[in-house]
Amino acid sequence: MAEKHIGKQTVVLNNPPSIKATASIVGPKEGKGDLKRDFDYILPDELWGEDSWEKAESKLVRETFSKLLQNAGISNDKIDYILAGDLLNQCIAANYGLRDTNVPFFGLYGACSTMAESMSLGSMLVGGGFADNVVCLTSSHFCSAEKQFRFPLELGNQRTPTSQWTVTGSGAVLLSAEGTGPYIKHITTGKINDLGVTDINNMGAAMAPAAADTILTHFADTGLVPEYYDLIVTGDLGKVGKQLCLDILKMNGLNIEAMYNDCGVMIYKLEEQDAHAGGSGCGCSATVFAGHIYKEIMKGNLKRVLFIATGALMSPISLQQKESIPGIAHAVSIHRSID
Amino acid sequence: MAEKHIGKQTVVLNNPPSIKATASIVGPKEGKGDLKRDFDYILPDELWGEDSWEKAESKLVRETFSKLLQNAGISNDKIDYILAGDLLNQCIAANYGLRDTNVPFFGLYGACSTMAESMSLGSMLVGGGFADNVVCLTSSHFCSAEKQFRFPLELGNQRTPTSQWTVTGSGAVLLSAEGTGPYIKHITTGKINDLGVTDINNMGAAMAPAAADTILTHFADTGLVPEYYDLIVTGDLGKVGKQLCLDILKMNGLNIEAMYNDCGVMIYKLEEQDAHAGGSGCGCSATVFAGHIYKEIMKGNLKRVLFIATGALMSPISLQQKESIPGIAHAVSIHRSID
Repeated sequence: MAEKHIGKQTVVLNNPPSIKATASIVGPKEGKGDLKRDFDYILPDELWGEDSWEKAESKLVRETFSKLLQNAGISNDKIDYILAGDLLNQCIAANYGLRDTNVPFFGLYGACSTMAESMSLGSMLVGGGFADNVVCLTSSHFCSAEKQFRFPLELGNQRTPTSQWTVTGSGAVLLSAEGTGPYIKHITTGKINDLGVTDINNMGAAMAPAAADTILTHFADTGLVPEYYDLIVTGDLGKVGKQLCLDILKMNGLNIEAMYNDCGVMIYKLEEQDAHAGGSGCGCSATVFAGHIYKEIMKGNLKRVLFIATGALMSPISLQQKESIPGIAHAVSIHRSID
Repeated sequence: MAEKHIGKQTVVLNNPPSIKATASIVGPKEGKGDLKRDFDYILPDELWGEDSWEKAESKLVRETFSKLLQNAGISNDKIDYILAGDLLNQCIAANYGLRDTNVPFFGLYGACSTMAESMSLGSMLVGGGFADNVVCLTSSHFCSAEKQFRFPLELGNQRTPTSQWTVTGSGAVLLSAEGTGPYIKHITTGKINDLGVTDINNMGAAMAPAAADTILTHFADTGLVPEYYDLIVTGDLGKVGKQLCLDILKMNGLNIEAMYNDCGVMIYKLEEQDAHAGGSGCGCSATVFAGHIYKEIMKGNLKRVLFIATGALMSPISLQQKESIPGIAHAVSIHRSID
């Protein structure tokens, strides 16, 4: 095994990058949830002056990137790489939203795991000495996602209680070789998990096994205990998937209930906002991390966080062809200071 | 700038990874071109026993991964990461084709630039000491691509002379910290370029500016001259894009005509096989590199190669919404020995 690899799937960064700044922009519904004060900007409406939802999502990406540079006080020519992707076919939100940045670009597709995937790869590029500054970014948009994955919004379809609400939002993180933290120290990279779930209206169930697998592997690889972290937070399992994840972990002898939460549960007032099982989409974990969690770490309210973004890797065509839904989950640990 | 960064966009690997093995599987049409003896396996037909083109493409990915492990004499538990992606919506060829590998997985979307993108990121993971063995893989399939990007095959639409033929094929590369070469030494990562081309039947024109930009940047960053390489090869510009790329380079004072070729031109007998402007798709540069070029390097016929895979980052929806086609190109240099 390479020297920085511990256990099966985890890297420990000897030169941990700092998260120098974050940025987050969300839609109107997300702007009415409990985390509303933590976002940089709340859209007045889902179109934001554009003539299509896809263009609105590209604008989200473009403006979140700009806001990140502004928050960090850095110009685009100091950024070595952007790592970004989204849910849209051929990742057009990222490709069009970032086409004018003039920065070397690596496109990713990790579905809703993209925020942790980009932070994992970005941390290794910085930690390996290949980059000084890397931007990690992702987005999702309720309307473009419904149109692409489910039904035309105009149909006004009813939603099942297990269904989740795709977050309209974009989150971005600047990783830097220089800085005073918070630091990314561990990277536990997920494998594709497929337990045969086929219900497109229950993505939490499809992703929970992958999340549990990555969490179990993280603790097995590092020898750490859950109490080491103030917060263990999954990306977008929602309340159904969150409970399943806890159950799978308990069956495997790991109890994380005391410090566990899920970004999909945190972002909305589930009952009051009619958000069913909770938030989903790449933008869910991205905005909750870049908006809320990062600020809590900076305030000193959280010292160590294990952030696990979760993705469902199907497509409408794979479901029409009777395939099940593979899941994946990538984890990174974020530390206020290096201990 | 980070110590391993030279110039604007180029990394030099102090611990260059070896390409320990490659694998390539292609479709029947590709199996009748000039490179047919260099591929590991030629499909009997486009469906290969599956009941959909998407499943056939997943099988291509699955079998190419297996063939790579077999060619390298390595088992899946020795692979630290797979970096892979494809053209299908939500990258289902890679996601389903690799779901049973039990290997940590990073999904990429670089359109037809994916082979060089995966080799760039993989080289930095190995070169940075984060991995011993990384698999880089991509695929495309003529029928699944036509269905998704253009017209139903059953329509039998005529094709314009500038149109390209999506390669049915998958190529994979094993990068390793140990080995005796060929080595990856330079990585020049592309920026998104959009000069306003909107013709979906002339992708070579959309990607040529990105290819030229990355080639110019590579020589500016490294201070090398084209004669340093025996072969400078772009991914899938086809004969129209190849000429445009040469023209743009000449306008900028760089003449690479003597050692330049394009995988899209190499893979078919263009006239005889009715392949119009040439091959395209992620599988084009992937199979030409993993099949032909790698073997020429191993035979000693090529000592230094600059491999530039080129991608067009649009989607059918972005074109319907009157957007132009952004392009990107990533370059890696491959050296038979370290000089």
